[in-house]
Formats: sequence, C-alpha cells, structure tokens
Amino acid sequence: MNRIDETGQSPASNRAGATDARSAAWRDDRRHVLHSWSAQALIDPVVVAGAQGSWFWDEHGTRWLDFSSQLVNVNLGHQHPALVEAIRAQAATLCTIAPYHANEATARAARMIAEVAPGDLDRVFFTNGGAEAVENAVRIARQHTGRHKLLSMYRSYHGATAGAIALTGDPRRWNAEPGPPGVVRFWGPYAYRSSFHARDEAEEGERALAHLQQTLELEGPHTVAAILLESVVGGNGILVPPDGYLQGVRDLCDRHGIVLIADEVMAGFGRCGEWFAIDRWGVVPDLITFAKGVNCGYVPLGGVIVSERIAQAYQQRPFPGGLTYSGHPLACAAAVACIGVYRSEGLIERARRIGAQIIGPALAAMRERHASVGEVRGLGAFWAIELVRDRATRAPLVPFNAACAANAPMAELVAACKRGGVWPFAAGNRLHIVPPLNIDEADLRHGLAAIDEALSVADRYAVD
Amino acid sequence: MNRIDETGQSPASNRAGATDARSAAWRDDRRHVLHSWSAQALIDPVVVAGAQGSWFWDEHGTRWLDFSSQLVNVNLGHQHPALVEAIRAQAATLCTIAPYHANEATARAARMIAEVAPGDLDRVFFTNGGAEAVENAVRIARQHTGRHKLLSMYRSYHGATAGAIALTGDPRRWNAEPGPPGVVRFWGPYAYRSSFHARDEAEEGERALAHLQQTLELEGPHTVAAILLESVVGGNGILVPPDGYLQGVRDLCDRHGIVLIADEVMAGFGRCGEWFAIDRWGVVPDLITFAKGVNCGYVPLGGVIVSERIAQAYQQRPFPGGLTYSGHPLACAAAVACIGVYRSEGLIERARRIGAQIIGPALAAMRERHASVGEVRGLGAFWAIELVRDRATRAPLVPFNAACAANAPMAELVAACKRGGVWPFAAGNRLHIVPPLNIDEADLRHGLAAIDEALSVADRYAVD
Repeated sequence: MNRIDETGQSPASNRAGATDARSAAWRDDRRHVLHSWSAQALIDPVVVAGAQGSWFWDEHGTRWLDFSSQLVNVNLGHQHPALVEAIRAQAATLCTIAPYHANEATARAARMIAEVAPGDLDRVFFTNGGAEAVENAVRIARQHTGRHKLLSMYRSYHGATAGAIALTGDPRRWNAEPGPPGVVRFWGPYAYRSSFHARDEAEEGERALAHLQQTLELEGPHTVAAILLESVVGGNGILVPPDGYLQGVRDLCDRHGIVLIADEVMAGFGRCGEWFAIDRWGVVPDLITFAKGVNCGYVPLGGVIVSERIAQAYQQRPFPGGLTYSGHPLACAAAVACIGVYRSEGLIERARRIGAQIIGPALAAMRERHASVGEVRGLGAFWAIELVRDRATRAPLVPFNAACAANAPMAELVAACKRGGVWPFAAGNRLHIVPPLNIDEADLRHGLAAIDEALSVADRYAVD
Repeated sequence: MNRIDETGQSPASNRAGATDARSAAWRDDRRHVLHSWSAQALIDPVVVAGAQGSWFWDEHGTRWLDFSSQLVNVNLGHQHPALVEAIRAQAATLCTIAPYHANEATARAARMIAEVAPGDLDRVFFTNGGAEAVENAVRIARQHTGRHKLLSMYRSYHGATAGAIALTGDPRRWNAEPGPPGVVRFWGPYAYRSSFHARDEAEEGERALAHLQQTLELEGPHTVAAILLESVVGGNGILVPPDGYLQGVRDLCDRHGIVLIADEVMAGFGRCGEWFAIDRWGVVPDLITFAKGVNCGYVPLGGVIVSERIAQAYQQRPFPGGLTYSGHPLACAAAVACIGVYRSEGLIERARRIGAQIIGPALAAMRERHASVGEVRGLGAFWAIELVRDRATRAPLVPFNAACAANAPMAELVAACKRGGVWPFAAGNRLHIVPPLNIDEADLRHGLAAIDEALSVADRYAVD
C-alpha cells in the first residue's frame, strides 16, 4: 500500500500508538508479518529485544534460558563474539558476490567443511538453507544414477520447498500434495512405538532393515536413485537409530547402486556430539545435507557435501542447480568462524559429554519421578522426553497432529516451562531438550530442574 | 575427509602451495566449491578480493565496472555504507531468532515493504530467496482457490527448487523433469520473435492476450489456481510487456477467480524505475514474489507480499509454509537500510531517468552502428542487446541453449567486454545492461562506450 507520509511513517504505525500500549515492533509484526506454519491470530509472538549465550529476552526484560536453540540452530548460543566479529569484518570487506566468482570466505568454508566431513565427501554446493540442500542432493542423486525414485521415512522433516516437502514424513506435507512423483516412504526404527513389534532396540534395528529391504524389493531396487534419511531423526522425535541400522542401510545402497543421502541439517555440526551424527556409527554416506549448525544460522546458509566420486561428473557436465546466493561470502565467513569455535572450544566433545553426564542422567531421573514421562532418549545435546497419559499403554499425552483444544496438555506444559524461565522446544507429545552445546553447566542444571518441575503439569493428565 | 593437521591446515592446501602460484582461496575454491550451473573444469572463477560501488576487483588488482550487478541483485552497488553499517549494527545486537518470535528488524522491514507495495498487499512472508518465495506463493494460491493448476510462461525463470523450476520456462528446467504435476506453459509477448506473427508491439500484446485466453479456455479456467509471470521477463531476455498486456492478464484473472502472482525477484525494487515493475502499468497483482533488490543480497532474503484479502485466511488457519530463517533479523535489517537508501537517494526515479536519458539512447545508437545488434529494449536500469547474425532474418548470433563451441561468438564478446574493463551479463544471444541504479554517470557512459567497442567482435559474425 503506497501510504508513506512525509515522516516516512505509515499511518498504521501512527494510529496504532493511540490504541495500543505495545511497541511499534509488536504492532508492525502483527500487522505485516506472516509467521511460519501458524494461524496468525492464535499466536502472540514475543518481541525478542536481545540475546546472549544461552539466554534471550523481550522488550520488557523478561529473560528465558534457551533450551530450544531457537529451531535447533544456535549450537553456539546467541551472539557468540567470534561469529559476530567475523560477520562484522566480512560485512566491511565484501558482503556478497555472484556464485560464478570465487572469494576467500566461500573457499575457506568449503575447505573446512570438507575437512570435517567423512570419507571422500570433499566438494560443497552451498545453498541458503536445508530445504534447498535437500533439493540439490536429490537432483545430484538422480543424475548420478539415472534413476528417478526416492525413498524417505515416515516421521521425518526435510524442508518446505516442493521437492523437500514431498520427501518429508510429517503432517506439514499434507498441504503441499499432490507433490512431485517418485517418492516412496518407509518406516524407520522407533522402538518405543515399533512398527515391527520388536521387543528391544536391537530387534527394532534388524526388523527395520528387513522392512527396508522388502520395500526395495517390491519397488525394484534398480529404480531407486536415493535413500534419504536424517541420521538421527530430529523434529519428529529425536529417534536415534539402533547400532547397525545405518550400516545396514549403507550396505543395501551399495548392493543396489543407490545413493545414500544423510540429512544432517539438524543433527550435524556437533548437535549429536560428532561433526556429523552419522560419524557415531562410522558410516560414510554419498551426500550430506547441512544448514543450521554450520554457522548457527547467524546468516542463512546450507548446502550439500558431495563425494569426490560423484562430483567428478560435474567437471565436464554442468552442475544441475544454482541460486543467486550460493556460497554467500557473509554466510560463509560466519561458517568459517563457527567451525573454528567448535574446534577451539572443543564443543563436539563437550556436547557428547553433557549428554552422557548431565542431560541423559537428569532425564532418566525425570522418567522415574513423572507418570507422564513415557520415554527419554537422545545423545549429545539432542534429547526428547516423550509424554504419555499412561505408561502401560503408551497412549500419547496428546493425539498425533493435535489441533488447539486437544493439544491443551502440551500447551499447559510449555507455559509452565516458560513461567519457570526456560524456553522449551515442543513437538507433538514431546519436549525436545536441545540447548546450545556451550551452555553453562549451572544453567543447564538449572534449566533441567525447571523442566522437571514443569512436568508436574503433564502428570495431572497421566495415570500413575 | 578427516585430515586436519595440528596447524588446522589441510594437507591439500599445504601441498598446493608447492605446485601452483595461485592463492589459497583460488586453490580451495577449485578443490572444494561446486559452482552453480557450471561444468567445474570449464570455468576459471575470478577470486574477488573486494568491491566498492559499481566496481569490483580481484586479488591482483584488476578492476571491472559492474554492468551485471552480479546476478542483477546489487541495485545499490557494492558495499553501500548504509547497508554495511546496518548489518554491522544488527550483527552486534541480534543476528538470528526463530521465525515464531518477533523482532524489530523483521517487523520494520515488513512494514516498509508493505508501504511500497501496491494495493492491499500488506502482509509479508519472508524466505531466504526468490525460489522459496515462488514456492510459497504457489502454495498460497492453491489454498486460496482450492485449485491445482498453474500457468507460467515459456522464457521465464522462477528459481531452482522443485516447485519453482517446474514453473520455469528455460533449459535449466530440463534436468529437473519430470517435476510436480499441474504446470501449463503459455507464450508471453516478445514482438521481436513473435509467436503470434504480430507486426508491432500493440498487436503482439493483443495476440498474446488472446493466446492466454484460449489457453485458459482449453485448460478450464476453473481448474487454474494461479498465473505466474515476471512483470518484466528478466534472465530470459528483458522482455517488456506491451502496454495493456498485464492489465489484460489481470482482467482474465478477475473474470475466472485466478490468483495473479507477479514475480518481481529481478524486476522489482527499482530495477525498472518503479518500486515494482508492475507499478508502471498500474496493475495490482494478488501476490508479489521478491528477493535480490530488497536488500541487494547483502544477506540472503526473499519473500511473498500477500494481499490482505488473501492473508485473512491465515488468521485462523495455519500458514502452509515455513523455514528456519524466515524473517531473519540480519537480512531484514539490511532490507530496512536498503529501502531507506532507495528513498533517500531517490534511486527509483534515478533508474527511470538513466534508462530514458542515457542507456536507452546509447543502445539505440549502438543498434545503428553494429550489424550484430538486432534489437535493443528495456527500461530503467534493465536493458538487453539482442545479437544476431543477420538483421534481416533475425538469426541469433548463437543458437538457443548453445554448448561450448557454438557459443564461441558470445564468449568472444564477453571476453572483449572484460578486456575493456566492463563485467557484462551475458545470457543466450544477448548482453543485458543491468548496472547498479546508483552508478556514477561518468562510469555509466564509460561502460557503455566499452560495450560499444566490444560489439565489433560480434559484428565479425554478422552480415552487414
């Protein structure tokens, strides 16, 4: 709407001042911003005024301990001085340049990513985020194999662009259907709610592999370009695969000439106490998709790490993707600084340690104390508390994909966490415990105690 | 590859020093970066060391006048001090926050974009770039209409994610097929190579509208969710629609309840001498997709501007898209500064003026002088020189989608421009003249003279 007055203020913001005591930022947000995946009238966003380390605060000075890492991306917490300084320095030098040029920040970031990636995954195609990373990985896999079909998991999230959302196995996909052809979904291991009636983790892993093998047989393995999976499933439940599962998938891929794509957008860059989650099992995929932790999202960045073997084809043949901001210098300078901090502050190892020594034991104790806690699981700084109404039947605290009223128990739990000063990450019938990897130990214990206390709200809905 | 030695240097970068005198940045780039749309061995990227205003330079101090605005995104040139300072200030305050929060930079950017957008386009969903903007616009249009089919043009570019590339009408699409169902392509106006055998611009516009109307009839207009078009076609030729064409498309959309999506990723934010190119014709679309010029790509940013009428549905119903970096504070702070500069430096008007007074007349004179110049066309700071072997037959200087050898005449022309100190934007059989909107007038005239001189290379392939 062309309605700029001489002061450069919009009538809306002048008018609103008279009718609402909230800040201009809040009013402009409510009037002009569409928030992701939300019914706009049913949310009341916090206006975040600042953040430092594991804490952020609103305009009124209310502070929260960040147990969400926002969307599990600020692995180094907020406003890490090394990243801020790297961004400020690069901004003063060269903010952006077209992707057909080279520049030092992009080249260094690519080298450093290749250095920490497993096997011969030595080439990087940079994107703006995870969805575009998945889009490009799929296109590479199809070209490499000359095949079209893609296998991905139920209970997965791979991004919201048409190709990525079609591969996604959660309800956010439904609004985007019918999507592109050629996607087949299979069931991954999830022992607590086993699709395979397995009695323990080991059996779950074996049966999930047998199921994948059968699916391949029935689909025709020679028609399958890629198997795409989150090495550790993130937003859909922090599902850690049983030992041997990922190796089994790798073996199936090798047997049938299928490209293995490890989606490490959320699980990678230290979140699981490894550079990449898949490293925990020593398995080398053909392609890795990344985003989030590569530079903590201080500047949007994602990408695909491509094995040298596959990348060789693109020496003489055009790479089949592109975008204006591929290899963005400002984003890559943040990545260079971020990987430097992971190394210099030993944060990969620290994530492993706080998972094993602090978060894991604390959650195990909560499971003992709270009737609403069905299972706790995770590794590194990547954990879930799965909430139930009944531990015997494992009936979830709220139904799958619950709408407003049905989701009340979770909403109350989330509110209790926030009252306790902790900003949680809630998904379905779970709380995910996903703080920054460098969270202060006292803060971590304090936050876990607040979660522990808040769980009494969920207990009211659970049979003892 | 896990091969970090104690100095943090990779063996590759140590080794390369002995065998190649080029910089570490160049070696790391060649070894680890996959460049967009390129056969990696057939390119030799310039390592850009710095840039200022309309100039950039490499590590050896070779400087080029930027007639490309990179990928037509640095509308304010390189390293504009207001944008650099805004990024540095925001970096020190709050780099990133999850999209379910609000913050001042995002809210202000959304308000300022709504202020300059036409009609009731008052709500903004932010993405990382143009492809995601198109993906979300399409999803909104489908939800709003309850229809599935999408109409887009041959000779168009809308991005490289699965949904956006399927809507694209240039060869970059071919590698991504088969794509999602439901896309129908039609022919837009292009008088110089008319699909409709029209004799002039006015007739071309009328016949292109009649063609679109027939296409709608044969497709069933009630099955069509959206018509998506670049208000002025960019990468596929700077095709300015004849007066009346876009109003005619608007009328067809109104008659059949179809959503009109104006893709303004390249043409918007001043490039055409208007805030949005479509403003030139006073037409109000339902959705506008934007990126590039919104903040010159200093930080990746794009989005969809949504009419209030359509956005109302998302008050009570979840918005059907999302991404981790939606409304990214650092990117939005750059947008706030960028829109401020367009206003304070009067650059929208300036683009119009340099187009009408300098670029247009200079190109018209080149057409007189050079046998290889078939047509010149454009507006604002958005122009094309279409090159031919024969002005009588209009045979293009190089074939459509020409591979290496066939493209030699264009490659020679590009090399001549670079030797002349100007970095051109070449696409197909065209040079696009797309400098920053704030380019110094003397630089602009100097660059046009260099292009004029370089064209003698193309003349060698043309009959007089």
